[in-house]
Amino acid sequence: MIENVTNTDDAERRSAIVLLSGGLDSATTLYLARAAGARLIAVTFRYGQRHAVEVEAARRVALAAGVSEHLLIDLDARVFRGSALTGDQPVPKDRVPDTGEIPPTYVPARNTVFLAYAVGLAEARGATDIYIGVNAVDYSGYPDCRPEFIEAFQRLITLGTRAGYEGRPVRVHAPLMHLTKVEIIRRGLALGLDYGLTRSCYDPDAQGRACGGCESCRLRLEAFRQLGLRDPAPYAIHEPPA
Amino acid sequence: MIENVTNTDDAERRSAIVLLSGGLDSATTLYLARAAGARLIAVTFRYGQRHAVEVEAARRVALAAGVSEHLLIDLDARVFRGSALTGDQPVPKDRVPDTGEIPPTYVPARNTVFLAYAVGLAEARGATDIYIGVNAVDYSGYPDCRPEFIEAFQRLITLGTRAGYEGRPVRVHAPLMHLTKVEIIRRGLALGLDYGLTRSCYDPDAQGRACGGCESCRLRLEAFRQLGLRDPAPYAIHEPPA
Repeated sequence: MIENVTNTDDAERRSAIVLLSGGLDSATTLYLARAAGARLIAVTFRYGQRHAVEVEAARRVALAAGVSEHLLIDLDARVFRGSALTGDQPVPKDRVPDTGEIPPTYVPARNTVFLAYAVGLAEARGATDIYIGVNAVDYSGYPDCRPEFIEAFQRLITLGTRAGYEGRPVRVHAPLMHLTKVEIIRRGLALGLDYGLTRSCYDPDAQGRACGGCESCRLRLEAFRQLGLRDPAPYAIHEPPA
Repeated sequence: MIENVTNTDDAERRSAIVLLSGGLDSATTLYLARAAGARLIAVTFRYGQRHAVEVEAARRVALAAGVSEHLLIDLDARVFRGSALTGDQPVPKDRVPDTGEIPPTYVPARNTVFLAYAVGLAEARGATDIYIGVNAVDYSGYPDCRPEFIEAFQRLITLGTRAGYEGRPVRVHAPLMHLTKVEIIRRGLALGLDYGLTRSCYDPDAQGRACGGCESCRLRLEAFRQLGLRDPAPYAIHEPPA
């Protein structure tokens, strides 16, 4: 099939807002949105997170993906207090995922705020789609990463925005929702994503190297191990051989 | 009945986040939340609105109401582009309310973002309630002011927050939802609210005086007229006698 190149012109393509933290999941989501043919507007939030090295990772990934635009948005850090990710508690290093409890790394209403901003931006820019890399399989048990949360948000914006009121609501996509971490990495690799650009650690050292012990590192390292690959991101610990 | 004074101590009272724009509706909502006995945390957003005189009005109202805390939160103005309220279009001066169309003063996803922040703040501060002054009777036809929007937001945070997950979701109150503007003003006056402190105009002049012609002014002036009262806020036009 011969591609119609004019149809893929920036001006004629649908635009998508992609929430990009710089971690493994959001980077993969960006590449999936790109593969879907969208013109990409990546958005990264600074909210006082201690793992600010993520923001640099987001820049690298956005550049590599060839996004049309990458917005850094500063949020009022007072709103997100109380989490291990904003430095108000220690990051646990031995937590077993999937216990049914919400871990101390939960950040109050984070995805609600991120998605709310994304919707405002989508309406302001005429974007038709929003991509978010939430996942309910290999995840930390955050309530705002579950499918029912995404469905509730879709309902909210279908009711509460001009676009929704006029019958063309912005669509929220969570393409990783039901994938394992191994499946996520497989998809990203197939799309040419260099995971060495991404950072997932909740508690990196001063050089930006991952701790290897937090829940996010453990989920990630285990998935690369299962794939028989070495995680290309830098670790402060000596990583066990794959 | 003898009131137990210790129960109304700041430390023991339930805290409520109140969205306070400085307009007539949000000021009345603040006074209603106060009458409900809550410890008040007022929140005002700056989002590039051309009617920034509202923010000064919010300060005055918060002070008069005796709130425990008044937070000013700056939002990234890039997100809210495209509205007459952010200076990207003229404010209409002859619009008839209630035509079923969304007016140019609609701000993309504004209440979604405001409420999202309020929820994050409620979780961070341990507040149990959120008050928002939306109204679906004498209003400009914004989709994010309707009861179904507030219900959808309640569902979202019941699913998507730690407090909701643990069975004690933050409650969103919209006490003005089904009141006429006349009923709103009556309630505020009964609670001692000085409407001379509030500002509702979408397009005030350099001195902060209301234009008298925008939809917000017209709704407000008409309500005071029906009550046989003079609106105590300053107007740039010669106000018709009550």
